Amino acid sequence: MSTTQTNKIEILKSATSKINEVDFGNLSFGSVFTDHLFECDFKNGEWQKPVIKPYAPFLLDPSSRVFHYGQAIFEGMKAYKDANDDVWLFRPDENYNRFNKSALRMAMPEVPEEIFMNGLNQLLQLDEAWIKKGKGNAMYIRPFMIATGTGVIANPSHDYKFMIILSPVTSYYSGDVKVLIAEHFSRAANGGIGAAKAAGNYAAQFYPTNLANQAGFQQVIWTDDATHTKLEEAGTMNVFFRINDTLFTAPVSERILDGVTRKTLIELAKSENIAVEIRPVLVSELVEAAKNGSLKEIFGAGTAAVVSPISGFSYQDVYYDLPKIEKSVAIQLKDKLTNIQNKLEEDTFGWTVKI
Amino acid sequence: MSTTQTNKIEILKSATSKINEVDFGNLSFGSVFTDHLFECDFKNGEWQKPVIKPYAPFLLDPSSRVFHYGQAIFEGMKAYKDANDDVWLFRPDENYNRFNKSALRMAMPEVPEEIFMNGLNQLLQLDEAWIKKGKGNAMYIRPFMIATGTGVIANPSHDYKFMIILSPVTSYYSGDVKVLIAEHFSRAANGGIGAAKAAGNYAAQFYPTNLANQAGFQQVIWTDDATHTKLEEAGTMNVFFRINDTLFTAPVSERILDGVTRKTLIELAKSENIAVEIRPVLVSELVEAAKNGSLKEIFGAGTAAVVSPISGFSYQDVYYDLPKIEKSVAIQLKDKLTNIQNKLEEDTFGWTVKI
Repeated sequence: MSTTQTNKIEILKSATSKINEVDFGNLSFGSVFTDHLFECDFKNGEWQKPVIKPYAPFLLDPSSRVFHYGQAIFEGMKAYKDANDDVWLFRPDENYNRFNKSALRMAMPEVPEEIFMNGLNQLLQLDEAWIKKGKGNAMYIRPFMIATGTGVIANPSHDYKFMIILSPVTSYYSGDVKVLIAEHFSRAANGGIGAAKAAGNYAAQFYPTNLANQAGFQQVIWTDDATHTKLEEAGTMNVFFRINDTLFTAPVSERILDGVTRKTLIELAKSENIAVEIRPVLVSELVEAAKNGSLKEIFGAGTAAVVSPISGFSYQDVYYDLPKIEKSVAIQLKDKLTNIQNKLEEDTFGWTVKI
Repeated sequence: MSTTQTNKIEILKSATSKINEVDFGNLSFGSVFTDHLFECDFKNGEWQKPVIKPYAPFLLDPSSRVFHYGQAIFEGMKAYKDANDDVWLFRPDENYNRFNKSALRMAMPEVPEEIFMNGLNQLLQLDEAWIKKGKGNAMYIRPFMIATGTGVIANPSHDYKFMIILSPVTSYYSGDVKVLIAEHFSRAANGGIGAAKAAGNYAAQFYPTNLANQAGFQQVIWTDDATHTKLEEAGTMNVFFRINDTLFTAPVSERILDGVTRKTLIELAKSENIAVEIRPVLVSELVEAAKNGSLKEIFGAGTAAVVSPISGFSYQDVYYDLPKIEKSVAIQLKDKLTNIQNKLEEDTFGWTVKI
């Protein structure tokens, strides 16, 4: 390893690269990581010297609070390489701001913008060879923070570790997605942490999702926990419904994540003159629309899959198949968005940021 | 380190002990750990060879799912040493069974009883010198399991690590505890994971508790998230209310932890001819009882503090002070229970188990 100093980040370069061991045509999402990671520790009430170093396991005490009390947050972002080998981020300020909103809700320190953004940029520059060109290819970026303070007492940690790791990905095809509308299980409470990208929100979904899988469904559409009458999210994504020619999606709330893809699709749809209504959508409306044929599409929206079309849903043991349509708004918006992200189409919104 | 084999657990003994560095008269709860820990990994669909080894940090990959998706559960138990130097556990079957209920809800593998109980017993035997005699002294036991599988995709891990760590503790005096009744924030959703000892449930409480602390309250009494009219838990404890001569506590549910101290206090109270009603307790009832003077006591119940008396509560910006009483049921039950746990009084219930 050689040590250099760049913009205050200490950079410890890996002596060798793993890149030649990777089959970029056959990547399993989120399973391959680049040569380096970014790390910055929070101790004694302040952020310590940031470092980029070889991706490797690290040591934690068995009593670290992340293990016992789940004090942990993350973000999901992507970087894209254009035809000129320039690398672009998509709306990184949205992820940065949301990361710190999650930090606040989980009683963790905010990460300064300089640490987050410089760390991200320099890590991407160092592992730039891992970002492949062409539509569908991207670098998935995972900033995350964990409580590293020790002691088995349920109080906020004093010490934290902020890290960024990078995983090259290709377009995410989830296959035929049938969903089950939740009638009992929930992902978020009123006054809870559903709007934060807190680690604990995700493991809470695994068991209900396993049950749905066993019943033949790939995902769960979550409903409000108090009445199970309002449609909220699909799996780990925001969700849109197209009834006739209008798109519907729930407003963000303390139960519903303020998704970057969600807000981007809303803006894109408006620019394409597609009507969008942001309001609570009732299960009963969806069932009625499925029955009378006005329900045309359902799709999830998130960073990993971008847009994930849903082929049908089950509610109260009745399965409602969606029509096969020629002109899918989901695909139209996904094409538009991925063209902008991959710099194949002009970004008139100012969403893409060159590193 | 010397290696020996006992009942299939590999034992790697620490070459030296830290015990002489510890001030047992001045222990901060959950901050000091004994010389050894118990560890058993789950890989390839089965539990691997268990091991007892020196307490030390261990390596984890940055993409370990515990960091990103909060797949982690724990238990809290205590062991006590009697006047004859025998070591006793208190209702360990309750903790074992609840651990596996938590595992099921968090889509984690169940830990076989032999691994859990033999690990616990042999670890306590090895570090037996750390368990101090006398009322108030105990060994706090923290079994926990974390998802160690790698990959940033929100699915259950394939790999897990189950560990037991030990922390010597003295009686937990929390000082004067004033509580704030939650009017907005919540700890659990209907159809959520509130009944599991899942790591993510705890970090979710830190921010609302910090806000309460800043307003001069030591804890929050959580209410149901849908209506905020029902009293559910106090901080990380179950909660009891004494109105006139009857104790009230909420029934366990998918929002309320099935606490071992809670169920023990209910049985103890009944044996002492104290009336106990298990039913939802409304905030409005509490306020009314405080106003008319029939509210005598509020106390939390949990393994760490055993019984934690509360001196008053705030609701809708009005503070209700509880009367100073001579014959506190909280203290009566706590004395009875700690006497049984410390083997100072006969255990007619069969709760104590010798290791």
